[in-house]
Amino acid sequence: MVRYLNQKEAIDVDVELFNEYKFSVDQLMELAGLSCASAIAKCYPPGGRVLVVCGPGNNGGDGLVCARHLKLFGYCPRIYYPKRTDKELYRNLTHQCLRMDIPFVEDFQKMDDEFDLIVDALFGFSFRPPVRPEFSPLLEAVAQTRVPVCSIDIPSGWDVEAGKPCNTPAISPDMLVSLTAPKKCALKFEGSHHYLGGRFVPESLAKKYDLQLPEYPGTECCVSLK
Amino acid sequence: MVRYLNQKEAIDVDVELFNEYKFSVDQLMELAGLSCASAIAKCYPPGGRVLVVCGPGNNGGDGLVCARHLKLFGYCPRIYYPKRTDKELYRNLTHQCLRMDIPFVEDFQKMDDEFDLIVDALFGFSFRPPVRPEFSPLLEAVAQTRVPVCSIDIPSGWDVEAGKPCNTPAISPDMLVSLTAPKKCALKFEGSHHYLGGRFVPESLAKKYDLQLPEYPGTECCVSLK
Repeated sequence: MVRYLNQKEAIDVDVELFNEYKFSVDQLMELAGLSCASAIAKCYPPGGRVLVVCGPGNNGGDGLVCARHLKLFGYCPRIYYPKRTDKELYRNLTHQCLRMDIPFVEDFQKMDDEFDLIVDALFGFSFRPPVRPEFSPLLEAVAQTRVPVCSIDIPSGWDVEAGKPCNTPAISPDMLVSLTAPKKCALKFEGSHHYLGGRFVPESLAKKYDLQLPEYPGTECCVSLK
Repeated sequence: MVRYLNQKEAIDVDVELFNEYKFSVDQLMELAGLSCASAIAKCYPPGGRVLVVCGPGNNGGDGLVCARHLKLFGYCPRIYYPKRTDKELYRNLTHQCLRMDIPFVEDFQKMDDEFDLIVDALFGFSFRPPVRPEFSPLLEAVAQTRVPVCSIDIPSGWDVEAGKPCNTPAISPDMLVSLTAPKKCALKFEGSHHYLGGRFVPESLAKKYDLQLPEYPGTECCVSLK
């Protein structure tokens, strides 16, 4: 059975992919975002209106890539990206979405009325509580929406190991797409769909961290974990 | 029906993807190479021994990415990459393959005995004849092998528009994976499998160049053209 990583292991695996295996962020983010979009397409009907909520870091970058592939798959994505990172990669990912006619929205109200799915790409495996105050209203809105939520890698606001916080309104995603390998908090996930994406892990790295990854079917870039 | 591009159009579309849409070479090469590996997996049984022959430019880079995904799909790729480009991207793509235990071979002899498929990633859509003398023996060997050949984007040595040269031994691939959009020479392709890959073209770009791309099925990254 697949192993669930603690936060330090997740960070170490990530660092090793870049430093030892010399992958670029562009490459792995592209494959990660693609696998999220592919997993979503297995669970929610095409054509749906999707709000992709992007955070300032790599999780947000995965969200931008995911939005672009969702568009190519026939969904109607929009993006809420309140806190942008001024790095070339993020500027370019944003530009690509704009040029592919994916609207960036200015607020996150009306989730319940205007969308069929929320993609939560706010915080990833390097998140440490507490949530910064500027993100609290957004996180509360995603926690309270009636629309199904798909979290990328980690349900945002959850402790990467302990899982859902008890003292604040917390996201209860309907779907979780773990990337590279699931983190310990995914053991507390109670939604309908748990997928693994990010089919790029070299065998030697999987062995070193004893990841025990499941076999991806055929050429698929995601695999169901439940 | 899909439109077949002349060489200038192919170059213009490529330049526009980078300059206007701000895609990075890393991103598009990753998606292109992945789509080649996925298309190959539709036509040749997994586990096969594949020699990926890489040229010095972007076509060779697509080949390196393709080899890596073939490995993840369960094939046994090896790479022949005689003329390497000293750029960071190519060094990293090479390193990734090495670290994923894909052997680099020192010569291209024994194609017939040791391989089930040759992937031709020598020259792409910017090729202009004649073939440089240092590549002639290799091209001849690929032209003469009894093993099926899958060409990436352009059968190497072919004129991008006119197709197969008559005055030299030329490659007759069993499979062709056109990238982004097929080029005019693909009209002269007589092999068994013609696929289109590179599912990243923005609608506005497809419209501008009147590409008339076929619909990709579901979340597939390649589509059969015949």
